Amino acid sequence: MTSRAQQRVDRALAGDRRSLARAITLVEMRSPGVGTALATTTVRRRAGPGAPHVVGITGPPGAGKSTLADRIIEAAVAAQQRVAVVAVDPSSPFSGGAILGDRVRMGRHTGNDLVFIRSLSSRGHLGGLSAASAEVVDLLDAAGFDLVLVETVGVGQSELGVMEVADTVVVVLTPESGDAVQTMKAGLLEIADVFAVNKADRPGADRLVRDLQRSIELNQAKGWQPPVHATSAAEGRGVDALLDETRKHLAWCAGEGLETWRTRRGDALIRLYLDLVGEAARAEARTTLDAGLEEAIRTHRITPHQAAQGKR
Amino acid sequence: MTSRAQQRVDRALAGDRRSLARAITLVEMRSPGVGTALATTTVRRRAGPGAPHVVGITGPPGAGKSTLADRIIEAAVAAQQRVAVVAVDPSSPFSGGAILGDRVRMGRHTGNDLVFIRSLSSRGHLGGLSAASAEVVDLLDAAGFDLVLVETVGVGQSELGVMEVADTVVVVLTPESGDAVQTMKAGLLEIADVFAVNKADRPGADRLVRDLQRSIELNQAKGWQPPVHATSAAEGRGVDALLDETRKHLAWCAGEGLETWRTRRGDALIRLYLDLVGEAARAEARTTLDAGLEEAIRTHRITPHQAAQGKR
Repeated sequence: MTSRAQQRVDRALAGDRRSLARAITLVEMRSPGVGTALATTTVRRRAGPGAPHVVGITGPPGAGKSTLADRIIEAAVAAQQRVAVVAVDPSSPFSGGAILGDRVRMGRHTGNDLVFIRSLSSRGHLGGLSAASAEVVDLLDAAGFDLVLVETVGVGQSELGVMEVADTVVVVLTPESGDAVQTMKAGLLEIADVFAVNKADRPGADRLVRDLQRSIELNQAKGWQPPVHATSAAEGRGVDALLDETRKHLAWCAGEGLETWRTRRGDALIRLYLDLVGEAARAEARTTLDAGLEEAIRTHRITPHQAAQGKR
Repeated sequence: MTSRAQQRVDRALAGDRRSLARAITLVEMRSPGVGTALATTTVRRRAGPGAPHVVGITGPPGAGKSTLADRIIEAAVAAQQRVAVVAVDPSSPFSGGAILGDRVRMGRHTGNDLVFIRSLSSRGHLGGLSAASAEVVDLLDAAGFDLVLVETVGVGQSELGVMEVADTVVVVLTPESGDAVQTMKAGLLEIADVFAVNKADRPGADRLVRDLQRSIELNQAKGWQPPVHATSAAEGRGVDALLDETRKHLAWCAGEGLETWRTRRGDALIRLYLDLVGEAARAEARTTLDAGLEEAIRTHRITPHQAAQGKR
């Protein structure tokens, strides 16, 4: 028996772009069929660093992440690489609407067979965001891309969770991003493999580069030391050097850092498993929530805790 | 049978500050005992707007949220109100470490019996953050505070989820926050009841005020129209006017907007119920994860989806 979701996934993996786009929509909608399809299809999973090289791009709003992604696409296409971009859109969990700014900006790559750009709306799925993006990256992996960029606003937890899927995380900051303490507060220091100080022509850029370098030294992490690069993505300056650093990081992952990479990747897989279990239970509770219980919770006759304990 | 968690909760509700602090720690650690305690104790839940007035303060890093919270505390204390602050710290889900900047800054209120300040670390609990903060606000509610401020970085989904607990959401922006599109992308327009354009003496503040007002008009939401206020929290300017707006919003919630308030509050309670069910299932899966299955997932012998489907 082959479900429609299964067919979509199979065709997507065979290289059909339209099926790929639809399969991603099914993942995004948390369609139960696609979960089964992903479980039963022999979706290729990265067993080692690279193939594809999954590069996460994160940082505060307005740091120029999309512009940087755009430049990286350009460089990849020039090298005849197949590149996919997943822009995780932290659009409102309230309206469910996606602002298409990023897609519009990257629109000049539309029609280029080497490039696949997709924005992934988060649709109010608290906690499900990292699971969804991990699944999408698996699909893109299986579909044979060489480079997968995952772009997300890097302040919230769910968005940081998205970065777990990456081999290499590029944190993009600007002199306007605020001081180093703010960066640490946002948890960016711990996840960065490479720092890009973008809009490097603006005042304060040199200071930010120095502050970050000092923070990295103080952090005294073992193994890979995240380099700090000045870029001007809008003018294309510093992007090649930045890309070189991401490749150096990938080479480190494949060599000296292999155990670190394996642990990170394994942790992400375990987390995905736990997220899927939690999400399935949550979805089931929503489906089976009867009108009486809902009304009782809404009118304070029973607390959410009492209701949840009653479920067990 | 009374558990230790139950005793903590009971004492916290009786006004013991140390027990309150410890009960919050139990909530933060997602201690199963405190869930039971919260389920069985007749924790007061806000059945109507206010009592306490829960004010959410959100916005990008560096917008001056803590400084604004500090000014609001000042004003509340001057009016002999009991005020609690929950600073939801989006510290690293990787290190688990909390940067204490906010607490330090608000430290001058330590020792004031009217003021209770607590930072709530997110501790890597994807999805559990809004549940945890809802529980903490319930505790503070039951403990009899007049005003509860919940401060969080407003870019990520989990952090926006935290705002569901508020009666009134204040979104703090600065001229440096980037343009209106970025604000919409971050989902801030949909959740704002009041806008504060902080650091209003900086260039671009007037333009941001106008852009926001235009966005609000274009949005054409029914009911409450979020006002836009210029503030300079560091100098204390505009804060009283801002507080007046939050009170006007509360009055609206209690009158004309009561159905809107009830729906929002009911939605938040249902979401908390579903979150608790999902979280319990996730926690159980982690506890019962045997070494064999973990190894199989880590070494790609079984996909997370297959493992999760096997659980059902």
